[in-house]
Order: sequence, then C-alpha cells, then structure tokens
Amino acid sequence: MERIKKFIEAFEAEGIEAVLICNVEYSSKPTTMYLSGFTGSFSFLVITKDQQFIITDSRYFEQAKQQTKFALVEHRGVNVLDTVSSVLQRLGPKVVGLEFSRISHDTYLKLTEKYQATYKPVDKIIEQMRMVKEPQEIENMKRAIEISEESLVQTLQLVKEGVCEKDIAAELEYRMKKLGADGPAFETIVISGPRTALPHGRPSERKIKMNEPILFDFGAKFNGYCADITRTFFLGKPDEDFLKIYNAVFEAQTLALERGNGRMSGKELDSIARNHIIDRGFGEYFGHGLGHGLGLEVHEAPRVSQANESVLPVGAVVTIEPGIYIEGRFGVRIEEDVVIREDRLERLTRLDRRIQSI
Amino acid sequence: MERIKKFIEAFEAEGIEAVLICNVEYSSKPTTMYLSGFTGSFSFLVITKDQQFIITDSRYFEQAKQQTKFALVEHRGVNVLDTVSSVLQRLGPKVVGLEFSRISHDTYLKLTEKYQATYKPVDKIIEQMRMVKEPQEIENMKRAIEISEESLVQTLQLVKEGVCEKDIAAELEYRMKKLGADGPAFETIVISGPRTALPHGRPSERKIKMNEPILFDFGAKFNGYCADITRTFFLGKPDEDFLKIYNAVFEAQTLALERGNGRMSGKELDSIARNHIIDRGFGEYFGHGLGHGLGLEVHEAPRVSQANESVLPVGAVVTIEPGIYIEGRFGVRIEEDVVIREDRLERLTRLDRRIQSI
Repeated sequence: MERIKKFIEAFEAEGIEAVLICNVEYSSKPTTMYLSGFTGSFSFLVITKDQQFIITDSRYFEQAKQQTKFALVEHRGVNVLDTVSSVLQRLGPKVVGLEFSRISHDTYLKLTEKYQATYKPVDKIIEQMRMVKEPQEIENMKRAIEISEESLVQTLQLVKEGVCEKDIAAELEYRMKKLGADGPAFETIVISGPRTALPHGRPSERKIKMNEPILFDFGAKFNGYCADITRTFFLGKPDEDFLKIYNAVFEAQTLALERGNGRMSGKELDSIARNHIIDRGFGEYFGHGLGHGLGLEVHEAPRVSQANESVLPVGAVVTIEPGIYIEGRFGVRIEEDVVIREDRLERLTRLDRRIQSI
Repeated sequence: MERIKKFIEAFEAEGIEAVLICNVEYSSKPTTMYLSGFTGSFSFLVITKDQQFIITDSRYFEQAKQQTKFALVEHRGVNVLDTVSSVLQRLGPKVVGLEFSRISHDTYLKLTEKYQATYKPVDKIIEQMRMVKEPQEIENMKRAIEISEESLVQTLQLVKEGVCEKDIAAELEYRMKKLGADGPAFETIVISGPRTALPHGRPSERKIKMNEPILFDFGAKFNGYCADITRTFFLGKPDEDFLKIYNAVFEAQTLALERGNGRMSGKELDSIARNHIIDRGFGEYFGHGLGHGLGLEVHEAPRVSQANESVLPVGAVVTIEPGIYIEGRFGVRIEEDVVIREDRLERLTRLDRRIQSI
C-alpha cells in the first residue's frame, strides 16, 4: 500500500480530506486499478487518511473482495450516488478531491447537490504519480511488449498478396491473447497501400498487394499495462520513393533514441526528430507529436511534442513514433517504447527497426 | 441526413441554437458516429440549423472527409478548445447544447471560460433518438448477432476438459473478427466452475473440468452496433442442483419473452421474470436488472429493471438476461436480444436456449 500512502500525503498537502474516484462507463478504470487493484467497470473509491472504501454493486462484490484491501460497501439501491453520499456524510470531509477530467459534468452536478463540500481537482497529483513507473510496472510493460513482438513475428508469416487487412488484424489479436495478453491495448491498425497515409486508419476488407507498404500499429495489454508499437513493411522490393521516406523517418527516430534523456523537455525531444524530417523536406507531412506517455492507458502523460515544455520525468515510459504521410500515396511510421532515464532512453522494444521486405 | 434534421428540430424546440458534441478519449464516440458518420476517436461536432462542422486533427482529416458530410475544420494548434471556441464565436449562439453526461467537468469548465453562453443538456434528446432503432440499425444488430452466434457454434467444438478460459475467449474473439465483426463489443466473458458465480468475471488461466458449468457472455460489434448474448453450458451430465437453477432461469426468461410488449414499463417486464425466480426461492440470488438497451453501446437506454417505471419504447432493442448466482458454487445466466414491438418482443437471437451438455 506504499502507493496509496503517497497519494494520501500528496492530497493532504493540498488541504484535501477525502478523494472520490468515480469509475463508471467512460471513466476512471485505470486510476481505480492503480490505487485499489480493482479491475471491474463500476466502482467508487472513497479515500481518506484512515479509511479506504470501495462502493460497487452485486455484479462485483466477489471480485472486489478478491482484488482490493479497500473496505467493501455494497450498493443495493437504485441511485449509486445516494450510497456514495451516505459514505461521505459518515466521514464528513469539508474538502473533497475529484478527477475533474474523468468525472462527467452531469455526475459532478448531481454529486455536489447530494453532498455539499469544497471540491478540488486531484488530476495533477494522479497524473504525476502514474507517470513515473515503479519497477513492477515496467516489468508488466516489458511483458506486454514481448507478447506484442512475438505476435507480430508469428503473424508476418501469414502476410501475403490477397489477404485482407481485417484478417491480418484478427490473426494478430488472436496471437496476443494466446500468448497471455489481457487483450489488445487499443484497436489494432493494419493498413496497406495508399491507406497507410491515414495515421489512424482502421483495418478494412482491402486485400494487400505486391509492391506496396503495409503498416501495423498495435499493442498487447498485460496485467492492465499497454504496449504500443508501429512497424511499416514493404511487400516486395521497395522503390526509391518509399526508401527515401522510410529512411527519413528511420533516421529521425534514431536521432531521438540516441540523444534523448531525462534532462530535456518533451518539446526538445520532439524537435530532435522533427528538425531532421524538416531538413529532409517532409516537415509538413509529419502532422502529429513525436510520442506520448504509455502505461495503464495507451495515451497518458507526458506528451513528447511541441506542446510540452516541461522536463521529461525520469521513470516515465513514452513512445517515439515519427511518421511521414503523403495523402493519396502512402505513409510510413515507426514506433518504439522507451523508459526515460536520466542520461538516456532505455528501449523496451526489440524488433528490428530497419526496412524489411516481406 | 433525416436523422440530423430530427435532432435539430428537437434541440431548437428547447431554445438551443447550437449543439457541441465532444468526442475525446472516454467520451462521445457513439453519438458522434450516430449524428455524423465519423468513427475516429477525436472530434468535436458543432451543429446548427444551417451548418454542421466537424473539428479534428491531422490524424483524421482524410477519414473525416470520407465518412461525413459535415464541413471539416482542421485543428492544427495546441489546444483544441481554442479551435472549438473560434467556430462558436463565428456562429455566435447564445444557447449551446452539450451532453452533460459525456463531457468531463474539466472540459466543461475550460469551454465555458473560452466561450460564454447559456449551456443546456441535450442528453435526453439524444437518448430518446438513439433508443428507437431505424430499420437499418436493426439490420446491423442482426448481423452482429448472427456473427456472434456462428462464432460460438464454431468455438464450442474446441471446448473440452483441460482448455483454459482465456484460450476459449481468444478463439471466440478471433472467430468473430474472421466472420466480419469490427471486434468484440465488450470484454468477452468465458468463466467456468465456481467462477460462473461472478456475474462479470474475466476469463482466467483456469482449465475447465468435467461436471461443471461454463458460461459465455459475449457479442460482436458490426458497423458500430453491438450484440450481447449469454449462454451457460454444462460439461458432462448436469446434476439435479444445476438443473433446478437452470430451469428457474430458463422459465423466468421464457415468461418475459412471451409476455413482454411495448405497452409495459421496464419495471413490469423485469417483474415478470423476477417474480418467477422469487417463487422458485432464488430471489436473493438475482442481484441485477433483467436487461438493458443495446445499440451503438452495449449498455444504453432503456433499462429493463425495477428502476424504470417508463413504458418501453417501441423500436428499442434490449437484452433479457435473468441470472441466479450462488457464491462459491456456480451461476447461471441466459441472455437474449429482442426488439420491443407494440404487442410482443421480437427475438433477434436464434441459438437454442435450452440446457446443453458439451
């Protein structure tokens, strides 16, 4: 419970007496898991210095008992906010912390009507804590990455002319699960030919053809932790045009991987790769940031982009994923997962990054 | 664009001049798809009587052009709410509609600071519209259900003593994708033995054994629409205890399927099944509602439970899923998907509901 102690210290330092974490559909499942261990899709955590409660319904009573040391409060009525506010009333905090970015405005209005207090955001505290990974978290991410890589290697053997994108994606996800993943960390992207120019395209019925690229952006989830890897392959012998763009992306990534460290800002690290792509004449075709934090969610803090002027925290895991997308023709992206260390970036991904024909 | 016209009429009737639909992580992707056709994970719709805009970033420019008739506003800066508020400023609405239950409190605070107006909820309007399915939507759901059922039939052939729950779940999801699903509509549940008493248990490494039940709760998503089906099987010859409980659930479901119609409330329909289970002496072991609405989301309006005293709308699709769970021993649930018709429930699921040994 070291983690929960740290959290309590941090919110008490801001004068907050109790924190409520709301995990309903579209809400705060990762933070709930992070703080309590509970992985179900419906719960409310109430955390004070002396007591920690989890409120859930009959679907999850057993699971909550198995997964968390928080005291179970069984919700049996119609409106869960009645149960939540009765717990708050018993404890009587005057200042209550909430994740403002994870609670709906509607729930906020209903909650604050049922229990009057001063409500303060705790999003930053949670973001800061979750950003810096503990060794055990890194181990889970390594395993998620290993599973992803092995699944890709297995799946590549089935990739040939005439197979459709969706079937390849199905195969890849199947392999991840068979190798022990919880499931895919996000919707698997397998796109080919001109569709590779869509940075977030979805697998379609399109059959892959010779002499065109195929792009995989995918990752397994393991014990709740996400991998996020991209590789762009070429079916057949790549032509000059493709090689020129692949190399620009590859070199930009190499520079970022070699020069990055925990003393630079997200913006500085982004610029290392971006400046190279600009120098090669493709600046306008690299429309997204260089990377993003990775952990219990596939997109979390810190951002590795022009928008982040803060120094990257040592211990954070981020993606390094430059890309160049030429509308109507093709796109190339290569994505690695790294841990920010004080003096370097430690690569967690191990697959070859160089151009490969299949 | 019939749908969008209806929506505009409905919000104008409440004095709302423009509606903003925010689709960011943990937010309103289904409504975005419903109103605009766009399926990406990052967009803001601005809808007025005369103009409809979609704001997204470079990852999705191409996809937005392909999927929606809304005018594309390219967001290129750092803060998307700047782009959103500049669109609002150009249009100048004094009353703006928002989905209060889908926008985070944080986004609400930031938005209302950048663009001052009277903000009103439109959740009810959207819920009412999405609840009543158009024929095309029912077709998509039928296809999602067919794919799910065929996948289960194929997967059952691989179920035998010694295979673990996770591997069966992986197989089932693979079959759904191969048969054309977008993917699973939710985390597939395959649980066996005493774990069947967990109404929302997750597949584990547990190997299935002879003379115990195995429960599947799963569904494919097709064109964005969800199926949601549960079956409980028995490995070997079911004993008296199991049969007694299976029959109580089966009979309760049969009564609901035969007597339900679009003139009764969610509470009345729930009571038909619940009273039977109470009569059989298992009332306390049926801890959840009889069913829920199904569509672009796996849980949507209307609820079929004691909490819903409104008449069930004709054209809604709901699940009918009674269950009995005996902690530490086993659980049984059977779940069908039906369309509410004025005089009956139209079953969409076709798999046999009777007890089956495998």
